[in-house]
Amino acid sequence: MQPFQGIANINGAFIPADEASVPIFDSGFIGGVSVFDTLACWEGGLFKLRQHRERFERSAHAAMIPLRCTGAELDAIIVETTRRSGLRNAYVQAIATRGRRPSPSMPSHDPTLIVYAIPYLSLWPEAKAESGISIVIPSIRQWPASVVDAKIKNFNRMHTHLAKMEADLAGADDVVLLDERGLLTESRGANVFLVRGGALYTPQAGILEGITRETVFEIAAELGIPAAERDLTPYDLYTAEEAFLCSTAGGVYPVAEVDGRRVGAGSLGAQTARIRDRYW
Amino acid sequence: MQPFQGIANINGAFIPADEASVPIFDSGFIGGVSVFDTLACWEGGLFKLRQHRERFERSAHAAMIPLRCTGAELDAIIVETTRRSGLRNAYVQAIATRGRRPSPSMPSHDPTLIVYAIPYLSLWPEAKAESGISIVIPSIRQWPASVVDAKIKNFNRMHTHLAKMEADLAGADDVVLLDERGLLTESRGANVFLVRGGALYTPQAGILEGITRETVFEIAAELGIPAAERDLTPYDLYTAEEAFLCSTAGGVYPVAEVDGRRVGAGSLGAQTARIRDRYW
Repeated sequence: MQPFQGIANINGAFIPADEASVPIFDSGFIGGVSVFDTLACWEGGLFKLRQHRERFERSAHAAMIPLRCTGAELDAIIVETTRRSGLRNAYVQAIATRGRRPSPSMPSHDPTLIVYAIPYLSLWPEAKAESGISIVIPSIRQWPASVVDAKIKNFNRMHTHLAKMEADLAGADDVVLLDERGLLTESRGANVFLVRGGALYTPQAGILEGITRETVFEIAAELGIPAAERDLTPYDLYTAEEAFLCSTAGGVYPVAEVDGRRVGAGSLGAQTARIRDRYW
Repeated sequence: MQPFQGIANINGAFIPADEASVPIFDSGFIGGVSVFDTLACWEGGLFKLRQHRERFERSAHAAMIPLRCTGAELDAIIVETTRRSGLRNAYVQAIATRGRRPSPSMPSHDPTLIVYAIPYLSLWPEAKAESGISIVIPSIRQWPASVVDAKIKNFNRMHTHLAKMEADLAGADDVVLLDERGLLTESRGANVFLVRGGALYTPQAGILEGITRETVFEIAAELGIPAAERDLTPYDLYTAEEAFLCSTAGGVYPVAEVDGRRVGAGSLGAQTARIRDRYW
């Protein structure tokens, strides 16, 4: 296996990313008690650092995970870790856990803070940036907010792992999860948009407060494309003129196919292309 | 913080438990893709090794996490790790993850297997083994089986962490989670039983296939106490003659209070005592 290039900072200490580890008794490992956020560094600049850091702080607050540092201090660690990685295009992630437990049955109050910067990566194959990816709607559902709100960006991702296995079995690239009502929510670490009548629509509930998603709304406003949140079903996706996923890890990616049904022209659509060109 | 006494085995290598760690890029840490099982070693003997190992294999199978070894090999690692710990009474845990990812966006197929043995521990304070613990029913709900089936014993435990925080705020010891229908499911790593009309009742869905729970059924049969699975609500718990939680980590523990309502006599009840005496 290739070693990970890049740098990590664990509780203030810098080490090569490839050597970064946590005790097995860290609550992020044996308890799934961790939150995170992912930033893109592109051509040397961190995209929307404040928005990502503030969302990270909201995740930690809702999850009752104390942060070892906040605000400007956190910004400084993220910037310095990215700088020390020497990477112009980097995938930068901040992770907070409640730290090493005093015993496996007890919560810890000595939190762990990890920031790392490794070479930029995309969730989807670069070869499909024009031709589009294929999606399935898996049997696995999205977390209900009554269990863990999807707004808390956290690593309890057994469900998206199981969903991705369904996609792999179907020979598809990725998934869009439904909620308990059968409404579209999101993909794995990515939001979904569709185009109908020239306007953009995206689910309004059961989703992360996506920063790329927010950026798509900003770009749509600039371009004069109407965009709205709405309850959406698989039917809406099957019959859309265009559809795309968006994420910090990959940007805007066209969806060519959903559950074996071609979406629109089955490749990068005109509106998706306009948004993607403005994003990058 | 006290170091962890005991021994861990990671992918075949023995090390002191306190030094055991995993890379931050292990899918168990950054993806929550891990399953586990916990065994009790009591007075030098591992309790129901085969049943725990088989449940661990079922969890891994359902979660599509390949195991580096199975069956008798796995038994041998569990036994040898426990033996090398030198502990007569041990808390023994096996954990499987999909291992270190080739990239944060991709699944790994080189799985990690960890077994460790540390001093035996209970989920609840020993001082309350007679007087009973207090429970709250938190706002946080149990996973629906459509997201992740509670039968897959895994570390996506953000929800029980949030639930335990609610218990802490209420000054209570632990929780019993409801499912989406408002029916009782289980506690954090423990099943719940109640006594009504001299018979035992326990929830039938949304729960782990508890091995201590199964043992309670066996003991009840030996003692001639009727025992059945049933849909149960908070009302049933409030108005029960007795109630108890049961887990590998603590055995059978009386519940004295639920949501501020005394349960039965508010301490160890007669039927609970008979079962507990037989369990240990």
